[in-house]
Amino acid sequence: MAASTGDSGFDHVPAAGEVEGDSKAAYLHFTSNNTIYGTEWFTEPRPPDGVPLVCDASSDALSRPLEVSKYGLIYAGAQKNLGPAGVTLVIVRRDLLERTPEGLPAMLDYRLLAENKSLYNTPPCFAIYVVGLVVHWLRGLGGLAEIERRNTAKAASLYRAIDESGGFYRGHARPESRSRMNVTFRLPSEELEQAFAKEATAAGLDGLKGHRSVGGLRASLYNALPPAAVEALVQFMADFRRRKG
Amino acid sequence: MAASTGDSGFDHVPAAGEVEGDSKAAYLHFTSNNTIYGTEWFTEPRPPDGVPLVCDASSDALSRPLEVSKYGLIYAGAQKNLGPAGVTLVIVRRDLLERTPEGLPAMLDYRLLAENKSLYNTPPCFAIYVVGLVVHWLRGLGGLAEIERRNTAKAASLYRAIDESGGFYRGHARPESRSRMNVTFRLPSEELEQAFAKEATAAGLDGLKGHRSVGGLRASLYNALPPAAVEALVQFMADFRRRKG
Repeated sequence: MAASTGDSGFDHVPAAGEVEGDSKAAYLHFTSNNTIYGTEWFTEPRPPDGVPLVCDASSDALSRPLEVSKYGLIYAGAQKNLGPAGVTLVIVRRDLLERTPEGLPAMLDYRLLAENKSLYNTPPCFAIYVVGLVVHWLRGLGGLAEIERRNTAKAASLYRAIDESGGFYRGHARPESRSRMNVTFRLPSEELEQAFAKEATAAGLDGLKGHRSVGGLRASLYNALPPAAVEALVQFMADFRRRKG
Repeated sequence: MAASTGDSGFDHVPAAGEVEGDSKAAYLHFTSNNTIYGTEWFTEPRPPDGVPLVCDASSDALSRPLEVSKYGLIYAGAQKNLGPAGVTLVIVRRDLLERTPEGLPAMLDYRLLAENKSLYNTPPCFAIYVVGLVVHWLRGLGGLAEIERRNTAKAASLYRAIDESGGFYRGHARPESRSRMNVTFRLPSEELEQAFAKEATAAGLDGLKGHRSVGGLRASLYNALPPAAVEALVQFMADFRRRKG
């Protein structure tokens, strides 16, 4: 483990000085966005020279531009921003493909998949087709720069509602690590949190209960969520606080 | 290898006497339908006592009733009769789950998947949903017995066209092993086969070229193919033979 922020409840991603690089490591792995705690890396950790950077980008791939050349390997399950669950995007440097060990099961052997243009076995055609549609949609919007602008605006609006609630809502993540994909926050008591989730669901704002492992509340703002949904949540939050705060 | 019919070009599945069971084997594996050669097992091979029978049923699962209790493990990729590519159906005996070795990658660990009701990782929701729709459709038709009746009728119609062509069309599989899913046949020359595939495609009958590894022609008659498509092919075959035979 090159770094952990477990001591502070994973409320931020390690700063540059907090990552202990090992120059003999096979790779340095990080997850660019943490859906449970609502934290996100805005600058990649820097591995020692020669150590490839590996990233699980499942929950923020295609939510913003990425400097792919910094990475040895990026993998991302489609189900957040890319398309339907059941297909995984992999971007891997050619020299790392050469390091694929012999004897891997075919579906885990990236070299075999690359050599066969991802057609070694029957691929999940429909899921790939939908990812194609999503990419066309993104391009039509203005590409990754534009979706980043939209995602930043959505998240800013929600974090503002938290910060300006006079302490009624408390964000879990520290401001410098705040995820633009998953906004996690607490209320003054678990009873209020339960009431909030229940009333929000009744008001058509569903899926706000935090991950079962941490509790609290969580609003996921993936690419497909329209700004109007965030505005509705912000208004609900103000109304709930007026009634219960 | 418990049996092979390679000497006769895989034109039939091994008969009961041709399978050499090994009572110390971990399992006896067979593929219930061969999409390339167009052969199908209508009676399961019988493993020695205590040896579990394992079946790749990818290309004929849900095309006919199956006596599941004869099997230790059945697996089937969805993409032929079950639904969209990207999900696999697995039916496994509980005592075999117990034999799962430690240290398997999670996605290959059936015990882990079973313990988590197939929800250990995000499942391919859309593909599973469509499999559900297909199963409802099958039930509405009259279930596996009815789809078997339809599949048998479709295949019989096509094999009849082959057998009554005076040798112009030659079926690859021996009659006792003829697949109801994939009908493979040859014409008097490769030139005629190419002309057949080309003209058939122009007539709206696509996908009839045999698998690249064996050539010839192949008509796939999976559940979703309506009888009218088979009748159109039969008429095209008669017309082609009249013109070129």
